[in-house]
Amino acid sequence: MKTILVIDPVVMDAWDAQDAREYDEYMNRVKGTETVIKSVSITRGPASIETDYDVGFAVPEILRAVEDHGADCDAIMVNCFADPGVLAVREIAEVPVVGAAEASMALALLLGHKFAVVSTGESAGPSIELQARALGVESRLAGAVGITIPVLGLGADRGETARQLISAANELIATKGANVIILGCTGMALVAEAVRAALPVPLIEPMAAALKMAEILAELGLHHARNGLYTPPDKTKLVF
Amino acid sequence: MKTILVIDPVVMDAWDAQDAREYDEYMNRVKGTETVIKSVSITRGPASIETDYDVGFAVPEILRAVEDHGADCDAIMVNCFADPGVLAVREIAEVPVVGAAEASMALALLLGHKFAVVSTGESAGPSIELQARALGVESRLAGAVGITIPVLGLGADRGETARQLISAANELIATKGANVIILGCTGMALVAEAVRAALPVPLIEPMAAALKMAEILAELGLHHARNGLYTPPDKTKLVF
Amino acid sequence: MKTILVIDPVVMDAWDAQDAREYDEYMNRVKGTETVIKSVSITRGPASIETDYDVGFAVPEILRAVEDHGADCDAIMVNCFADPGVLAVREIAEVPVVGAAEASMALALLLGHKFAVVSTGESAGPSIELQARALGVESRLAGAVGITIPVLGLGADRGETARQLISAANELIATKGANVIILGCTGMALVAEAVRAALPVPLIEPMAAALKMAEILAELGLHHARNGLYTPPDKTKLVF
Amino acid sequence: MKTILVIDPVVMDAWDAQDAREYDEYMNRVKGTETVIKSVSITRGPASIETDYDVGFAVPEILRAVEDHGADCDAIMVNCFADPGVLAVREIAEVPVVGAAEASMALALLLGHKFAVVSTGESAGPSIELQARALGVESRLAGAVGITIPVLGLGADRGETARQLISAANELIATKGANVIILGCTGMALVAEAVRAALPVPLIEPMAAALKMAEILAELGLHHARNGLYTPPDKTKLVF
Amino acid sequence: MKTILVIDPVVMDAWDAQDAREYDEYMNRVKGTETVIKSVSITRGPASIETDYDVGFAVPEILRAVEDHGADCDAIMVNCFADPGVLAVREIAEVPVVGAAEASMALALLLGHKFAVVSTGESAGPSIELQARALGVESRLAGAVGITIPVLGLGADRGETARQLISAANELIATKGANVIILGCTGMALVAEAVRAALPVPLIEPMAAALKMAEILAELGLHHARNGLYTPPDKTKLVF
Amino acid sequence: MKTILVIDPVVMDAWDAQDAREYDEYMNRVKGTETVIKSVSITRGPASIETDYDVGFAVPEILRAVEDHGADCDAIMVNCFADPGVLAVREIAEVPVVGAAEASMALALLLGHKFAVVSTGESAGPSIELQARALGVESRLAGAVGITIPVLGLGADRGETARQLISAANELIATKGANVIILGCTGMALVAEAVRAALPVPLIEPMAAALKMAEILAELGLHHARNGLYTPPDKTKLVF
Repeated sequence: MKTILVIDPVVMDAWDAQDAREYDEYMNRVKGTETVIKSVSITRGPASIETDYDVGFAVPEILRAVEDHGADCDAIMVNCFADPGVLAVREIAEVPVVGAAEASMALALLLGHKFAVVSTGESAGPSIELQARALGVESRLAGAVGITIPVLGLGADRGETARQLISAANELIATKGANVIILGCTGMALVAEAVRAALPVPLIEPMAAALKMAEILAELGLHHARNGLYTPPDKTKLVF
Repeated sequence: MKTILVIDPVVMDAWDAQDAREYDEYMNRVKGTETVIKSVSITRGPASIETDYDVGFAVPEILRAVEDHGADCDAIMVNCFADPGVLAVREIAEVPVVGAAEASMALALLLGHKFAVVSTGESAGPSIELQARALGVESRLAGAVGITIPVLGLGADRGETARQLISAANELIATKGANVIILGCTGMALVAEAVRAALPVPLIEPMAAALKMAEILAELGLHHARNGLYTPPDKTKLVF
Repeated sequence: MKTILVIDPVVMDAWDAQDAREYDEYMNRVKGTETVIKSVSITRGPASIETDYDVGFAVPEILRAVEDHGADCDAIMVNCFADPGVLAVREIAEVPVVGAAEASMALALLLGHKFAVVSTGESAGPSIELQARALGVESRLAGAVGITIPVLGLGADRGETARQLISAANELIATKGANVIILGCTGMALVAEAVRAALPVPLIEPMAAALKMAEILAELGLHHARNGLYTPPDKTKLVF
Repeated sequence: MKTILVIDPVVMDAWDAQDAREYDEYMNRVKGTETVIKSVSITRGPASIETDYDVGFAVPEILRAVEDHGADCDAIMVNCFADPGVLAVREIAEVPVVGAAEASMALALLLGHKFAVVSTGESAGPSIELQARALGVESRLAGAVGITIPVLGLGADRGETARQLISAANELIATKGANVIILGCTGMALVAEAVRAALPVPLIEPMAAALKMAEILAELGLHHARNGLYTPPDKTKLVF
Repeated sequence: MKTILVIDPVVMDAWDAQDAREYDEYMNRVKGTETVIKSVSITRGPASIETDYDVGFAVPEILRAVEDHGADCDAIMVNCFADPGVLAVREIAEVPVVGAAEASMALALLLGHKFAVVSTGESAGPSIELQARALGVESRLAGAVGITIPVLGLGADRGETARQLISAANELIATKGANVIILGCTGMALVAEAVRAALPVPLIEPMAAALKMAEILAELGLHHARNGLYTPPDKTKLVF
Repeated sequence: MKTILVIDPVVMDAWDAQDAREYDEYMNRVKGTETVIKSVSITRGPASIETDYDVGFAVPEILRAVEDHGADCDAIMVNCFADPGVLAVREIAEVPVVGAAEASMALALLLGHKFAVVSTGESAGPSIELQARALGVESRLAGAVGITIPVLGLGADRGETARQLISAANELIATKGANVIILGCTGMALVAEAVRAALPVPLIEPMAAALKMAEILAELGLHHARNGLYTPPDKTKLVF
């Protein structure tokens, strides 16, 4: 059995309780039979992550969550497409750490010539371009756009959310030559089936992608290098 | 249960029988509990793949193997780091198709700043640079080199094989800043543990990487796009 | 005098006999006065090359054609825009080897800021993007598209073929800033004059481009390097 | 007169008092006659920034510093080569925001073919490569390395610090073809003169570079776009 | 006090006298209080620079201007967006040398995700793409276009000039995702305020950008490297 | 018959008369039987081209040479590896225009994985890197270096010139993985045979490469686009 620590880097108390339950059920359907999910949410910080400002306030809480709950797990998954704090978590973790965007983009490489991302918010496009550049796969990115429904509103009218995502995805397929679509927010998991059913190309749902990627890294016994980016911090330097 | 069709794109009869058995055992250790491996080797063509000439004679046999044995599987894995025929197989397959190199490089993106590949043969370096460019991850490749032992000789003296691989890997770490090492031949699986134990950075063994990647694509229900690169061929055009 | 071995990597018996004669006449008009063309077609494999599947079945026959007919020539030209087997042929040839796409793209570099390719088939666009990346000239490629007439139908209604190519080319000029157009199939040679006459930018016909490039490499005494990609294969490894 | 808010994203109380005074004097020598510097340090968080973990704990405090002290300034400078929080600050600031690394790299473009960075710590090299990629100037970066003295030790023996920096810089000049050297830490300002005097190429000290860049953006009335990356956050979403 | 030698690489006698006076006033408003501008125009060569042909005839005159007037200045600014002769001037100058395009593009890096350039003439787009590539910032360039008014006509109807620039800029913002607009000709300075007022994103006027960049390089004591590109020429080789 | 106008962009009177004769003989050996060479040298400007300063004074004379001698030719070749004025000449020429560097680099794409350039002078390396970037083939360039013999001294001791070039080339092969070597100066033509004989990889001599490329462009009836970079200048704007 492998235990995956899934960190929700948002204050889940601010979310709709029914939606939250369905996310848990979704994860349990996706996980392998040999996987135990240990789920933890931050309790201070942003209710959703849509800007670098949000990321800024989420990261210390993510790091504290890892310090508080990271023992005895086999992999850590940061459950947000912004991949907040993933690099910093790797500095303090002895197990593989997976972000939703990098897992999705890595899988997309095997599924089609160009992938595109449909996310939410005006800054989504350039933010995701920067993520693709940081990952080194920018030549495979056909485009990225955000719909106008904010993250906390994605569940209010799932039909409308799906419609906007399908429309944005089809536009990227038609005008940018996208061959694979990635949903650019793990909060879109509950509409993924509806979107997938309507698209002529494969759809990657990032929460599932990250979980499966975490599972196989754990099973393969692979964790990140410690000889470059991910050198351990000197925690004694922090003043509080 | 998910069935993975594993295609050995080399004539396995030319290989050492004991090595072949150990490869099977290795795969069985790596596979998930819900995975059934269906293994098939080509019977005409090269005994090993080290040049584009070898690839050229292997690909038709790989395609025939898929046509003969590809029904009722959930994913197809081409068990060679040259990823021979992977694009062509996608044109005729309705299930996800995974090559060993692309799976390994995709995983490497999550494990360190730069990856390097230690393979075999003089042309390995430039060939692997071309593979990384084709995959779009060339900016993450620190370097690639080949040791001097040919593929069919890798098992003759496993200690020596491991020593040469470790030496090449350490050179890439020291001089090119590699943070992750990928073994550039699935035939190196039987020395992977020895190499891993000696390296200061993570080691990706491509046969295992490809199998796990095939598993999760199958579990996620993801297969490649059919709207661009991977359009179905018109088989009636072939003359024999 | 220089002898160029021109390999048609398709089963020419499947082609219209009158078209085939005109291709020969075209080549004879294009060739230099000091050039002898030695033409050979594969006799098994695809009748045309439009997918990686087609390429896969053509390559072994191309290699056999070189082995059977490659003695005493001064250069080898593979007469197809997919450049099938060009890398593999270099491994076994002591003379320069030229593919139609790489010759065309190399010439295009001297003729305008950005080139575009009009080819045939849905997969043409991404395939040609991959070719440009493999050649390292992707930043010069404005775009690539395929018309809907299949290769074997290009000669049926030359007027219609030309019209579709002109329309696609003008679209690439207007919307992608293309300054040079390359025909993406050597089977389009017979409509090249009609297309050229209608375009406001230079048009490269790849069969002619490859032949002239082969001529000058032969005249300059230049052949490919043998110290990296193009190391000779060990043919004894093949099992048939 | 233009007021520049200079944010030290580290707890300056942990620094040597004499060094801190000299940094202030240095800034006052560098600033233009029409510039007023308003300096503020975070009071919680890391004493120095050398890892992403450090950045993670610094960013919320930087954002609070801007919210508390950002009124009535004409530009904001984040005084650290990691450019912590610069993107997030732009989301909440109506004035130009300058990071030390991006200012230095922008200036370096005008001074030589390739620049290199000498910083401190094992992760400096890959971190700075990622910064250069994020800025889009990776093709101008010759290399980046860190010396072994930690940030808080840079002032202990300035002669030794300078010697190590000079040695690292000369190595990058000799082996990587660097034409411009950037100091990769604003804490190196007090040894900049000594390093500059010993190098055969121009040296950019990032604290000065960022201050001058902030001055001219303020004077030119230029601030960042608000139509893409830097959309204002919804602060009501934060829970504390 | 710092003296900036501003070289107009066009024959200013061909320009409207009132416009010329206003350019001077503009520069005097932009310059810092500690800056002395020393302005010199070439007297032979092109009246404006819109082609490489124009550049070709301007460069020797620029070099002569530097040789005649370059003593005792602290920086040299070449006042044209084509950056004519900037590399050659660096070979003979001991002070920093700034071109209008490279200064503008360097500043743009700090102001938004992607910049675009609105210039004049049909060749502007590809020319500016080449400039961005030469500077190494091509991944940040959203696009570049020219309006149809030639350089010497920009002042004839400033309202019309501004309207065309605003229209072109808005098109680049809407269709290419531009976040920052750069005016691609220093002759557009007199309409910059009108254009800026109408745009939803920051506007960089290159004459001002280059002057401020020259000022801070002079103040920082930074001049270009002499160990690579900018090696001094052997003037005795010239025959006249 | 095709007439190629070969422009020597240096004052040939400053060259050794015997060398000049041998260059002519070399060109006559290289040219095709259907080619007439019309050779013209500039009479004012630099005796050799080794800096941007030299280029700056050569270009107007090159343009005048084209205006004086360009009628009735079928192609123009600029006989210098710096490709001085090639873009400007295209603006005024109705026939194809070929530079020595771009012709050599285009041919190199077909001959090996990576090419390298051995030229002369300290600035050769970065200058050639910029040329490769401008041509869009920078990913194929393994490296570029200059030997210490200046252009006008290359003929003084041909044995020593060849030795230095061979040594530099072998260094690039051994340390940078170069598979093809290009001589980075057309003045090296007379030592090309000696260098070629000593190298394990193909050697491209740029004067011959450019001549053959000019021949085939003329034969193919291909000239450069006029819809982008190469728009005709307004010559009436020039003041003399």
